[in-house]
Amino acid sequence: MTLMEKEILQQPQVLKNCIDYNRQIFSEVSKAIKQKTITNVVIAARGSSNHAANYFKYAFESLAKIPVSLAAPGVNTMYNAELDLSSCLAIGVSQSGMAADVTAVLENGVKCGALTLSVTNNLESKMAKMTDFHLYCNAEKELSVAATKTFTAQMCLLGYLAAYHSQNDQVQKELTQIGDNLQNIFDLKPQIQDLAQKYKDLNSLIVLGRGTNYPIALETALKIQETTYINARACAASDFYHGPFAIVDQNTTTLLIAPAGNSQKDMQDLKEKLLGVGAKVLIITNQKQLAIGADGGIVYDLQGSDYITPFYNVVVAQMWACAMSLARGLNPDAPRGLQKVTITK
Amino acid sequence: MTLMEKEILQQPQVLKNCIDYNRQIFSEVSKAIKQKTITNVVIAARGSSNHAANYFKYAFESLAKIPVSLAAPGVNTMYNAELDLSSCLAIGVSQSGMAADVTAVLENGVKCGALTLSVTNNLESKMAKMTDFHLYCNAEKELSVAATKTFTAQMCLLGYLAAYHSQNDQVQKELTQIGDNLQNIFDLKPQIQDLAQKYKDLNSLIVLGRGTNYPIALETALKIQETTYINARACAASDFYHGPFAIVDQNTTTLLIAPAGNSQKDMQDLKEKLLGVGAKVLIITNQKQLAIGADGGIVYDLQGSDYITPFYNVVVAQMWACAMSLARGLNPDAPRGLQKVTITK
Repeated sequence: MTLMEKEILQQPQVLKNCIDYNRQIFSEVSKAIKQKTITNVVIAARGSSNHAANYFKYAFESLAKIPVSLAAPGVNTMYNAELDLSSCLAIGVSQSGMAADVTAVLENGVKCGALTLSVTNNLESKMAKMTDFHLYCNAEKELSVAATKTFTAQMCLLGYLAAYHSQNDQVQKELTQIGDNLQNIFDLKPQIQDLAQKYKDLNSLIVLGRGTNYPIALETALKIQETTYINARACAASDFYHGPFAIVDQNTTTLLIAPAGNSQKDMQDLKEKLLGVGAKVLIITNQKQLAIGADGGIVYDLQGSDYITPFYNVVVAQMWACAMSLARGLNPDAPRGLQKVTITK
Repeated sequence: MTLMEKEILQQPQVLKNCIDYNRQIFSEVSKAIKQKTITNVVIAARGSSNHAANYFKYAFESLAKIPVSLAAPGVNTMYNAELDLSSCLAIGVSQSGMAADVTAVLENGVKCGALTLSVTNNLESKMAKMTDFHLYCNAEKELSVAATKTFTAQMCLLGYLAAYHSQNDQVQKELTQIGDNLQNIFDLKPQIQDLAQKYKDLNSLIVLGRGTNYPIALETALKIQETTYINARACAASDFYHGPFAIVDQNTTTLLIAPAGNSQKDMQDLKEKLLGVGAKVLIITNQKQLAIGADGGIVYDLQGSDYITPFYNVVVAQMWACAMSLARGLNPDAPRGLQKVTITK
C-alpha cells in the first residue's frame, strides 16, 4: 500500500483526534476575538494549507460575519511592508510550521499587537511557539509528499473555529461526525479505481467548484498535478464565465465538484452548458440527479451542509488522484521535482 | 484593424484621462479613510477587474500598510451572509458597473455603514450611484470582448489611490507618465507578431509572475484564453513550487512575466529551474540578462518600479494575445461562448 493511501485511510481517526485535542483552544481563541474587538482576519498559507485557508474564508465569513483576507506573503517578504494588523486576527497555516513566508506574516502580526494563531502538525515548530494560540493537527507525521490527512485536519480545525465562534452547534456536531462517515467513501475504492483506469491517459483537466467547494476544486487539481503530472487546473465556477469558458470544446475534460447544497443549481447549469459545447464532464456528487448526462464520476451516499461536503468530496478526489497515479505507472509518494517541506519566501 | 488592437492603442490617452478626471476623488477618499479610521479594505470584482483588484491588494498593502481582502462574493449571494464591514472600505470594480455579485458586496457595505467606493467605466451605472465615491475610468465605451483599456485604467486608478493615500509622490508621478511611454511598447509590434507566428500552434501555456506582476500573469492567461482558446493558466511563482512544478517536462511551455525589480532574483531562479527540466521558457522583461537562455520573448526598453512595470508587461501581453489570435485565424473581438458583459451571482 502506498503511503498516500495509508494516510488517506487514517483520516477518520485524525479528524476525531484534532477536534478532541483542541477543545479548550477554540474557546480561548473565540473569547480573545471578542475581547480584542477584532474587525478582520488575515490568514497566510501556501499550497494545500492555502486551500484550507480558502475554506476558512468561506466558513468564517458565512458563519461569523467577519471579513477574512488571504494574505499575499510577498507583501512582507518582497516589499518589506509591515501591515497594520493591530485590530486583526492573524492566522498562519502550515503542515510543518516552518514556511518562511507564512512566518513573516505572523511576525508582522506579533510586532503590531495582533491576535495571532497558528495551525500546524508540529508542536515544536517556530510558528506554534510564536503565536498566542496554536491549533495542533494531531495527525502523526505525514510521510507522503502529497498532503492528505493534514489538509483535512487543517480544514476541520478552521471550520470548527468558525462554527464555535458563531455558536453554530449544528455545524460543530456535523464536523465531529465526519470521521465516522468516511468508511462510506473508502468503500467506493473499486468504482474510483475504474474511473482512474478509464481516464488514466488524460492530458489536461479543468476542475470546477463553488463556495466552500471551490477550495476543494483547487485541492483536487493540486493532488492530480502532484501525483499524475496531468495539466490540471481549478477555476471557480463563477469566474469560469469571465473568459476561461472560451477554451472549452469537445477536446476538453472537466471535473465538477458538485454536491447537493447551495451551489447545486449553479453547478447543474454549468454542467448543461459544458455538455452543450461538447465537453466531457466528470462529476463528484452526492446527488444522483446531478450526475445525469455526465461522462463519468463518483456518486457517494452521504449528505451534509456546505461546511461538511468539502470533506467527502476531497477524500474522493484524494483516492482518485492516488488511483490515477498508480494507473499511470507512477509512484504517488514521490512526485518528481517536489520535496515534502517547501519553504518559499 | 481589430477593435482589440484599436483599444490597446487608445491606452496612452485613457491612462492620462482617468487620472486627470478623478484628481479630486483621490483626495476625498483618502481623507475619508483617515476620518473613519478604516482598519481593512474589502475589494470585490470578477474576471479582468479582479486582476486589477489583485494589483491593488499588492499596491495598497505595500504602500498604505492596510490589509486588503479580495472578496468572495458568493458569501453574500450563495450563503446570504452580511459581513460586518463597518470599519472597512468596501470597493467594487466592474467595467460595466452592473456585476450583480459585486453589487451585492457593495450593498452589504452600504447597509452596515462601510465607506464605499466603485471603479467603473459607466457614470450612470448602479454601482457608480450607490457608493460614497466613484472612480471613473473615462475610457470611452469598450467594444472588444477582451478588456484592455478598461483593465489598465482600473489598475491605474487603484494604483494612484494607493500612492496618493500613502503620500508617495514618486509612484504618483510614475503613474502619470505611463501613457507617454507606451509608444515604446507599440513599436515592438513586429517582434510581437514574429513571436505569435512562432508559437501560434501552442496547446497549453503556464504564465508565471510574482508580487505586483502576479496579477499580470493572471490577466495574460485570461487574454490568451479568450482570444486564442489555448489552455493558458497562471500561477504565482511562489506557489509553483508547492505542487504544480511536478507537471513540468520538456513538453511544457511557460511564459515568465519577469521585469527588473523586486521579483527579479526569484524569476531568474525559476527560469533556471524550468530550463533545467527541459521546459520551454518565454519571457516578457525589460532586462536583457533575464532573457538569456529563454526560447523566446519580448525585451522592452522601459524601466520603472514594481508599481509601474505591470502596465508595460500587460500591454505586451495584450498585443501578443491579439497577434496570436490573428495568427491562428481567429477573431479576437468575438470569442466563442463569451459576452461583453458577464453577470454572475
